[in-house]
Amino acid sequence: MEGERIVALLHGRDRAGLVARVSGWIYARGGNILHADQHRDRHEGIFFQRIEWLPAGDVSEEMRLFEDFAHRDIEMETKLLRSSRKPSIVVMVSKFEHCFSDLVLRCRSGEINCSIPCVISNHGDLREMSEMFGLPFYYIPVEKGAKAAAEAEQLRLIRESGAELVVMARYMQILSENFLESCPAPVINIHHSFLPAFAGAKPYHQAYERGVKLIGATAHYATKDLDEGPIILQMVERVSHRDNVEDLMRKGRELERQALANAVRLHIEGRILTYKNKTVIFD
Amino acid sequence: MEGERIVALLHGRDRAGLVARVSGWIYARGGNILHADQHRDRHEGIFFQRIEWLPAGDVSEEMRLFEDFAHRDIEMETKLLRSSRKPSIVVMVSKFEHCFSDLVLRCRSGEINCSIPCVISNHGDLREMSEMFGLPFYYIPVEKGAKAAAEAEQLRLIRESGAELVVMARYMQILSENFLESCPAPVINIHHSFLPAFAGAKPYHQAYERGVKLIGATAHYATKDLDEGPIILQMVERVSHRDNVEDLMRKGRELERQALANAVRLHIEGRILTYKNKTVIFD
Amino acid sequence: MEGERIVALLHGRDRAGLVARVSGWIYARGGNILHADQHRDRHEGIFFQRIEWLPAGDVSEEMRLFEDFAHRDIEMETKLLRSSRKPSIVVMVSKFEHCFSDLVLRCRSGEINCSIPCVISNHGDLREMSEMFGLPFYYIPVEKGAKAAAEAEQLRLIRESGAELVVMARYMQILSENFLESCPAPVINIHHSFLPAFAGAKPYHQAYERGVKLIGATAHYATKDLDEGPIILQMVERVSHRDNVEDLMRKGRELERQALANAVRLHIEGRILTYKNKTVIFD
Amino acid sequence: MEGERIVALLHGRDRAGLVARVSGWIYARGGNILHADQHRDRHEGIFFQRIEWLPAGDVSEEMRLFEDFAHRDIEMETKLLRSSRKPSIVVMVSKFEHCFSDLVLRCRSGEINCSIPCVISNHGDLREMSEMFGLPFYYIPVEKGAKAAAEAEQLRLIRESGAELVVMARYMQILSENFLESCPAPVINIHHSFLPAFAGAKPYHQAYERGVKLIGATAHYATKDLDEGPIILQMVERVSHRDNVEDLMRKGRELERQALANAVRLHIEGRILTYKNKTVIFD
Repeated sequence: MEGERIVALLHGRDRAGLVARVSGWIYARGGNILHADQHRDRHEGIFFQRIEWLPAGDVSEEMRLFEDFAHRDIEMETKLLRSSRKPSIVVMVSKFEHCFSDLVLRCRSGEINCSIPCVISNHGDLREMSEMFGLPFYYIPVEKGAKAAAEAEQLRLIRESGAELVVMARYMQILSENFLESCPAPVINIHHSFLPAFAGAKPYHQAYERGVKLIGATAHYATKDLDEGPIILQMVERVSHRDNVEDLMRKGRELERQALANAVRLHIEGRILTYKNKTVIFD
Repeated sequence: MEGERIVALLHGRDRAGLVARVSGWIYARGGNILHADQHRDRHEGIFFQRIEWLPAGDVSEEMRLFEDFAHRDIEMETKLLRSSRKPSIVVMVSKFEHCFSDLVLRCRSGEINCSIPCVISNHGDLREMSEMFGLPFYYIPVEKGAKAAAEAEQLRLIRESGAELVVMARYMQILSENFLESCPAPVINIHHSFLPAFAGAKPYHQAYERGVKLIGATAHYATKDLDEGPIILQMVERVSHRDNVEDLMRKGRELERQALANAVRLHIEGRILTYKNKTVIFD
Repeated sequence: MEGERIVALLHGRDRAGLVARVSGWIYARGGNILHADQHRDRHEGIFFQRIEWLPAGDVSEEMRLFEDFAHRDIEMETKLLRSSRKPSIVVMVSKFEHCFSDLVLRCRSGEINCSIPCVISNHGDLREMSEMFGLPFYYIPVEKGAKAAAEAEQLRLIRESGAELVVMARYMQILSENFLESCPAPVINIHHSFLPAFAGAKPYHQAYERGVKLIGATAHYATKDLDEGPIILQMVERVSHRDNVEDLMRKGRELERQALANAVRLHIEGRILTYKNKTVIFD
Repeated sequence: MEGERIVALLHGRDRAGLVARVSGWIYARGGNILHADQHRDRHEGIFFQRIEWLPAGDVSEEMRLFEDFAHRDIEMETKLLRSSRKPSIVVMVSKFEHCFSDLVLRCRSGEINCSIPCVISNHGDLREMSEMFGLPFYYIPVEKGAKAAAEAEQLRLIRESGAELVVMARYMQILSENFLESCPAPVINIHHSFLPAFAGAKPYHQAYERGVKLIGATAHYATKDLDEGPIILQMVERVSHRDNVEDLMRKGRELERQALANAVRLHIEGRILTYKNKTVIFD
C-alpha cells in the first residue's frame, strides 16, 4: 500500500526558478513527486502551482517544514492538505432536491471524499429526504426582518460542524455580506444560468424569453456581489423552440447537478486556486 | 429523377384543424408531402409549420394556389420557396477572414446552395482573398460623419445584386436603424459571444476578464437593437485559466465559422421562422 | 385544468395522404392536436408518427376507435397511451449504485412518471439502499449452471409486477435469449461505451488501452445479440492521457446515469419507435 | 520584444527528481521557464515532459547543451524545437476538398505556423483549387498493380520538400507498410468515424446502418495497421433518425475539418508525444 500524500497549493509573485526550487526542495528531502502542475498569469505576474508528493519523513513534520520553506524562501502563499483527511461540508437547501440528493449520494459512495454533518434549510420540504439519508436537518426559516438572526443560527451550526466548505445546493436566499465575511468556510453556489447571462432571479424564464439556443449552469464561489463570484465550472445544453420553461428546468437540473457536484469535488481535492475573481483549476 | 419540390413556411393564429387542412389541401391536389414539421407556441397561441412536397401539377401554379389557400382559407402568413432556385447572398466583411473564406468555400462546394454576387467591405484587407475566389469586392470606407453616404452605397449594391440575404461575416461596424429598415433582405450577423452575455465590443476580452469556463458565438438576425435580434444558433467551447485572450479568439473562430455558416444554410433552406424576437428552426 | 391526453405511436407502409388522414380523423371527431411529429424512412418506405391530442369524447372510447381506424383504414401498427396512466418499471441491478439511485430519485420526484414495484439483483450489495428508498429488493443469485432457474424467478417477479418496462441499471449478467423472448416487457440496458466501439466486457479498460480521447455510454433495447440492440441514446465526454481507468469510470458514471435515465423517460413518455434494429425518437 | 523560445519534449524511464533536475538545469543556465507540463504513466513507469523556455545564451548552443544533458544526465529521449522555425507539411488529397481547403487557409492565416510546399493527389479534382491557392499540385494516379511506383514518386516529392509532416486530408488510398517505413516524416490521417467504431471503408454508411445517435471523426498517426495508429483527437456530433447518409456526411465534414486541423496544429507546436500506440497531448 502507498503512503500518505501531501498536496500543496501555492501562489505568489512570479520569478525565475520557482519550479526548480519547489521540486528541488521536495527531492532533496527524499519526497517523490506524483503530480505537479503550474500556471503563470504572465500579465499579472503571478505564479500558481499544485504539487502532490509522497514524503519520505513524517507527514505532519514535512507539511510544517514545507510551509516554512514556501513562506520564507520563495514567499508563496500556501494551502496544504493530506490525503488521509476527510473534510466535512454543510449543505444548504430550500425546496429543490436534485442537487441535494445528487451531492449526498456522491459523498456516500466516496466519489466526493467528504462527510455531511448537517443540512440547513429555510423550508421544511427536504426534511424527509434528509432523514432518509440519515442526515441531521435544521429548519431555520428566514422571516422578513429576521434574516440576521437566522444567519447567526446558520453560522453557529456551520462553526460547530467544523465544515471546510458550505454548499448552496439551490438554497434560494441571498446570503448577506455579513454572513459571507463571518463564515469560517468558503461557500460554493450553483446558479442556474450560463453567467454572466441571466444573473438574478428566474434565469430559465429569462432564457426562455430571450429565445437562446443553449442553457447553462454555473458553479461559483459566493461573494458579496450576487452571481459575481469566481466561476469554477460551467455547463451547457442545447434547447430549441420546442422547449418550454419546464423543459428548460428539466434540462437545467442535469447541468446544475453535475456542475455543482464537480465543483465541490474539485474544491475538496484541493484543485482550485482563486485570484482576481477568477479560478485556476488544476484538474 | 425527382421533380421540383415546394417548401412552405406558415405561421399565424393557432386554431383546431390546421394540420389536417394544410395536409388535406396538398393531398387533394395530388401532392406528395415529403416533410412536415409544425410547432405551436401555446402561450402565445401561434401556429408554425414547414411543409415540403412534390406537387402533381405545375410548380408555379401550385405555389400561387397554395398561397391563396393559406391567406384566404386558413389566414396564415406564408413564405414559399421552390427547390430549383439558387438565391444569392451579399457578404459584408472587415478585416477578419475566417468567416468569410469558410462561407465562400461552402457556397462553392454547394453545401450552401447559393451564389455570392459581391463582397462589401469597409477595409481593403480582404480584397486579395476575394479576388482569389473570383468575387467582386467593393471597398466602401465608412468615414466619421459619412456613414449615411457609405450605407447608401452599400444598399445600392445590395439592391442591384438581388440578394435574398445579407451576411455580416465579422463586419465590424454597426448598421444604422435606417440601413436595416431600408435593406431589401434580412441581415444575419455573427456575434462572438454567447449572447446575452458579453454583448457589445471586445467580447473575448470581456470573457477573459470575467474568467468564464466556456466561450460562445451567436448567429442572429440583425435588428436596430444591437446584439438583441432573434437568435438562430449558438455554439460554445470549453476554456480554462490556461487560455489567454488569443486562445479565446482562436477557439472562438471555430465557433463563429460554424454558427454563421449553419445559420446561413438554415435561412437559405427555408428553415427559419421569426416571431416575438425569437426563432423557430425546423431542422 | 386540461383534460386527459392520448398519445398514439403509428408506423407502417408509407403512402400518400397519411398525415392528412390521421389529422383529419382527429379533427373530424372534435379532437385538439397538441403535438404531431412524423418521419418517413424513404429508403425503406416506412411512415412513423407520434401524435398527441385532447379528445372531445370519452378517452377510452376514442382510443378504441382510433385503434380501429389505424388498423383498418390506414393499415398502421399502433401503440396508444393515455396521460393519466403511471406505468411501473422493474429495475435490475448488481453492485453499482449510480444508475439505480439516479433512476429511483427521478421516479420519486416525478421527473420520470412511473413507479418501481421491485428491484431484482444478483448481488446483495444494494439491498440497504433499496430499503432506504422503501423499495422491495429481491436477491436472486445467478449460480453457475442454474441461470435458467434464476431467470424463471426473475420473470415471475416481472410478470407479477405488471411492469411495462425492465431496466438493466448496470445489471452485470447477460440475459438469455429465452429470457428476452419470454419477458412480457421490453428491456432497456445501459452499456458503458460508445457502441459499437468496445462492446463486451470491461469497456473502460478497452478504451484506456486504445487511448481514445472521448468515452461514451449507450442506452439501448436489449436483444439476444449482446450490445447489438436498437440504440436509444448515446453520450460522450472528453478524456485525456491524464485520465486513468478510474477517471474513465468516474466520468463514465455521469454518462451512464444520464443516458439511461433519459432513455427510460423517453420510453415511458411514448417517444420511441423501433424498426430494423434502429430507433425513431420523437423528442 | 521577446527572444526566441526553445521547446523540449522529453520522455523516458521515470525516476525521482526529474522535474527538479530539468528545471534546475535551465534555471542554473539563466533560462526563464515559460511553460512546463509533465505526465507520468505510473503503470508503465514512463515520464513525459514538455518544457518551454527563454534561454539566456545562444539558442543553438543551448539546444545542443540541453540535448547532451537530457541524454547523458537523465537518460531521456528528447525532441527540440525553436520558436523561429516554420516547418513545412505535404498534403495528400483525393477528391474531397473540405479538409484540404480548411488546412490551407489556416496555414495562410498563420493559425497553423507552417508552409505547404506541395500537394499530392491520386485524382485531378483538386488541381484547380490548389492552383487558386498558389500551391504546386502533383497528380500521381495509383493504378492497380503500380502502387509501388506511385508511392516511390510520392516519397521522392516528400523527401525533396523537406516536410516535417505528411497530412492525409481525406486521401482515399491506404499507404503501404513500406511507404510508412520509408517516409521521412510522420503521417497524420483523418478517419471519418469515432474509432475504433466503424474502422475501414464507408464509415458514415456503417454508422447509418447501425443507427447510432452520435457520429465522430478521429485524427491519428498513420501506422501499418489501418485505422489503428495513436489517436490524437476525436470529435463527435449528435445525429438522429432524421439524418440520412448525406446529412451524416455534412455533419461529419465539420468534425473532420476541425479534428484534422487541430491535430496538425498540435503536432507543429510540439505538443504531442507518442508511446505504446497512445498519445500524450500537452495542450
